[in-house]
Amino acid sequence: MPPTDRISDDSGQREDAVLKAISRIVSASHIPAGEVHIGDDAAVLEPTVGSTVISTDVSVWGIHLDPKFFSLHDFGYKSVAAAVSDLAAMGARPEACVIAVTAPKGTDLIAIHQGIAEAALMTSCPVVGGDLSTGNDITLAVTVVGECPDSKPILRSGAKVGEFIFVTGPLGRASAGLRLRRAGADLDNELVLAQRRPYPRLREGLTARDANVSAMMDLSDGLALDLNRMADASGVGFELDQVPVADGATLEEALSGGEDYELIIVTPDPETLLHLSKERSQIQPILIGRTVSDTSVRNFEGQPLTPRGWQHSL
Amino acid sequence: MPPTDRISDDSGQREDAVLKAISRIVSASHIPAGEVHIGDDAAVLEPTVGSTVISTDVSVWGIHLDPKFFSLHDFGYKSVAAAVSDLAAMGARPEACVIAVTAPKGTDLIAIHQGIAEAALMTSCPVVGGDLSTGNDITLAVTVVGECPDSKPILRSGAKVGEFIFVTGPLGRASAGLRLRRAGADLDNELVLAQRRPYPRLREGLTARDANVSAMMDLSDGLALDLNRMADASGVGFELDQVPVADGATLEEALSGGEDYELIIVTPDPETLLHLSKERSQIQPILIGRTVSDTSVRNFEGQPLTPRGWQHSL
Repeated sequence: MPPTDRISDDSGQREDAVLKAISRIVSASHIPAGEVHIGDDAAVLEPTVGSTVISTDVSVWGIHLDPKFFSLHDFGYKSVAAAVSDLAAMGARPEACVIAVTAPKGTDLIAIHQGIAEAALMTSCPVVGGDLSTGNDITLAVTVVGECPDSKPILRSGAKVGEFIFVTGPLGRASAGLRLRRAGADLDNELVLAQRRPYPRLREGLTARDANVSAMMDLSDGLALDLNRMADASGVGFELDQVPVADGATLEEALSGGEDYELIIVTPDPETLLHLSKERSQIQPILIGRTVSDTSVRNFEGQPLTPRGWQHSL
Repeated sequence: MPPTDRISDDSGQREDAVLKAISRIVSASHIPAGEVHIGDDAAVLEPTVGSTVISTDVSVWGIHLDPKFFSLHDFGYKSVAAAVSDLAAMGARPEACVIAVTAPKGTDLIAIHQGIAEAALMTSCPVVGGDLSTGNDITLAVTVVGECPDSKPILRSGAKVGEFIFVTGPLGRASAGLRLRRAGADLDNELVLAQRRPYPRLREGLTARDANVSAMMDLSDGLALDLNRMADASGVGFELDQVPVADGATLEEALSGGEDYELIIVTPDPETLLHLSKERSQIQPILIGRTVSDTSVRNFEGQPLTPRGWQHSL
């Protein structure tokens, strides 16, 4: 909807002109026949194949990413990558995203959209539309749409008792990167890059769906919180034997640091998952434990793994 | 993505608890078999029939709606209605929406979501997912997905020379309602209601698509601005003979007041449009003028209708 008060001065850039500049940055280089991206009331995409999967994610500059240590380009990139990770977590293939931005006058919208465009390209999730408004905060709401050809999306609620719990990589990298950056590490430090430039596990999610796993979710808020959420949704408990800690990260960062965007995968059939991953030359998922019938059992090395990690206080 | 700093105090409501309360308010009463709405990494919808149409719209409390004169319930309602109007403008059928909210701690999220739920119900556009973050501003980013069975969505760029321009109703109501409310009118004044509770022209949009109209868009920013945008996109000029002014509104409000959410429809075949509208007992579209070949001609009653209306200064 338009704002209540008309903008009477022409000193700022006008909305249509800004939108044109941004659309040049984020537009896909190839738009499939029959599709319409930025510029109309809505974007037009080909009909989805299989179930349509949709998710929205909002980030606030200064809350989700600290301006003292990171750039608006990072903010644009991470916002899109985090949203696309929700598609990976369903085993979905990205179809498109739309971006809603608020920002104070004078904000470097170009830098934000260059970050958005980079993540959209990396994840094959073209930006097909957006909206802009002035505001006090810089906020980015990214909505992603994906599809699941051939089989159903994998839910977090599908885990059964006696199944095997995997993660797609060592944990704690993003959290360690944040700690290092705060202590003065360079932007191109490997762990700082894990924090600034997460890459959603799209191929691993597709492979897990092909392997008929029973439950999956992405690790955005940390293993301790997210695995407890999955156990709640599935009505199971869990016993973890080991958690892979990334080089340079602490065990606590691996357990409760967020933003790794690795996947938790639960399956009754680990052989197929590992076989398909190997056959496709992908990351070998790492076995960390088993689901159990007693829903009150949420253990790591025999001790309770209490939910802790990133939660907003609203 | 999660925030950089963990919330250390538990004095606020915790995210998961708030999300549960909100999901009870906005959840559809009937969820189709095979679909998954709120609660997983992403929502799962049935495959779309015909083209998928998607649009996002962001509103900021205090910029798009004035807290002195309106409520958070109004804000939730209008944000969804305005987004759904973009589906109407394509001739699409609503499929679902997702909502991203930022708000300071202590904000009445319940009121916002009651407004959201009301508009979702009114427009048959169920809320299937969302995200929440703290922020200084109250912002609502609404993303709507729709589908176009049987034929293609109607673009704003499809108008040809010598076609007929219609609107779906008298203009200026929302703008007049804002003026009256500021002057002390009651919330249930008919024009104030047009401002607070716009209803997207979904049925009229579907009928226009069935009538094979050539171009369509919704009037969110006022006729003067939006019709010029449509003329730019289509590469045509226009001559308007008359503009229907709503009872209680001024001519200027009809020309440049935004938020009426009526549709502009351009067609080479007005008989079919009028016939189908009548047959379906719908609003009869009102003829306001013709498209012309000289793109520099943008006239109302022989005088230039310059682009003016709601534009952000960014």
